[in-house]
Amino acid sequence: MQTKKNTATAPYDDFSKFLPHISIDCCVFGFHENQLKILLIKWEKFGVWSLPGGFIFPEESVDAAAKRILQERTSLQNIFLEQFKIFGEVNRTNLPGSREMLERSEVDSQTQQWLLQRTISLGYYALVDFSKAIPTTTPLIADCRWWDISKVPHLIHDHADIVKHALKALQGHLLNKPIGLNLLPTKFTMTELRRLYETILGKTIDRRNFEKKMLKLGILDRLDEVKTDVGHKAPVLYRFNLATYDELLNADFGFGF
Amino acid sequence: MQTKKNTATAPYDDFSKFLPHISIDCCVFGFHENQLKILLIKWEKFGVWSLPGGFIFPEESVDAAAKRILQERTSLQNIFLEQFKIFGEVNRTNLPGSREMLERSEVDSQTQQWLLQRTISLGYYALVDFSKAIPTTTPLIADCRWWDISKVPHLIHDHADIVKHALKALQGHLLNKPIGLNLLPTKFTMTELRRLYETILGKTIDRRNFEKKMLKLGILDRLDEVKTDVGHKAPVLYRFNLATYDELLNADFGFGF
Repeated sequence: MQTKKNTATAPYDDFSKFLPHISIDCCVFGFHENQLKILLIKWEKFGVWSLPGGFIFPEESVDAAAKRILQERTSLQNIFLEQFKIFGEVNRTNLPGSREMLERSEVDSQTQQWLLQRTISLGYYALVDFSKAIPTTTPLIADCRWWDISKVPHLIHDHADIVKHALKALQGHLLNKPIGLNLLPTKFTMTELRRLYETILGKTIDRRNFEKKMLKLGILDRLDEVKTDVGHKAPVLYRFNLATYDELLNADFGFGF
Repeated sequence: MQTKKNTATAPYDDFSKFLPHISIDCCVFGFHENQLKILLIKWEKFGVWSLPGGFIFPEESVDAAAKRILQERTSLQNIFLEQFKIFGEVNRTNLPGSREMLERSEVDSQTQQWLLQRTISLGYYALVDFSKAIPTTTPLIADCRWWDISKVPHLIHDHADIVKHALKALQGHLLNKPIGLNLLPTKFTMTELRRLYETILGKTIDRRNFEKKMLKLGILDRLDEVKTDVGHKAPVLYRFNLATYDELLNADFGFGF
């Protein structure tokens, strides 16, 4: 998998340039080899995994900050980003063990103070094209890579909780709206689509029932092509019908007039 | 309408006790006389209407702050509150005219500085029982009252935009989920339910079509009672069936498996 090194550190080594007490944390989801993936970073000094996140400059809107942070980590522009929840518990950045971890990491005391202070985090989630995202490291970020959603390592602060809520938001989206446009390649098989649903919902789905329901929604165009790079019987390829997909995105369900 | 005066000012006259750069703004919706209402306050010194809002104490979670702020304004406990959007534009608290308004108001320069500084607002909306809310004034808040959603006066900062987004969130809720439990009295007529939908959606709805759709949803129990305090033919009363209402709240629409 392609990764990138960004050697610029400034201005991210000087926290005083940001608004205090507010951060942004991003759950970046991708789909690859039938698995929902999430992008995680490892801070050089702390040795612990974390959601890609950051802080907001005084002269930068919150949405612009979220876009900047994700672009820095994925090299992707025009990411589909959605605010999904505010994480505002008092001690979320100063849980048992937080102080000890920072002390062990030997970061300077000013940085420790910044990272342990009361911080409200604004949660965003993004659905990105796995094949186009380039996980990007910096001198401060030793590692940046995709993890299977079922194999997420121990995370800093309340980030495990943030992932849980982002998944719930994603599931809520999936149960009420079509999904897949930002996660699947342009052409995909019915099995790939089903695996996407299975990995987000965390359960297996009956193959025939799924196909029947999906076709009934009218958002799939069956192509005159088959997927050829698979070993067994070549499966038919589908493509989203953008017109009906969009229509369904904006549809109401029995409550509209 | 009942209102209440709260004569305590401390600690709200000392902004330095709050986290800087973050505020909470609440869109409190009620339903009365077939109109969707929103609760607005008028600051004593500025003479301009505003959403009820406030700031967050260092030792207070964001959700607790939102509840406290609303309780101060409505005397209601256990309010149904939903985060709906973060308002993070750079100049939202320092729009053209903001500084002049504060200077005219003769508030001290420290307060001016606090109110004009970059502030990210966390938007909440609440659906409350109009009959039980008691709009509450304080020495700093000269007025606190309900306004028809169609007659909202000029509002401070970007609050008109916040109201617009809260209404959109409420409409989104209405189009996908049952609504009314927190807004209507326990027993209500079909016309009252329809007026609620009409006032949220901002359009008239065909009476027979509405009744047919609503009954089909299976969330209404028809009572053996009629509404007797109305002049013309006494209309039948309905009540939400909490079991099916809840079921529908959590239902998916064709995308679930």
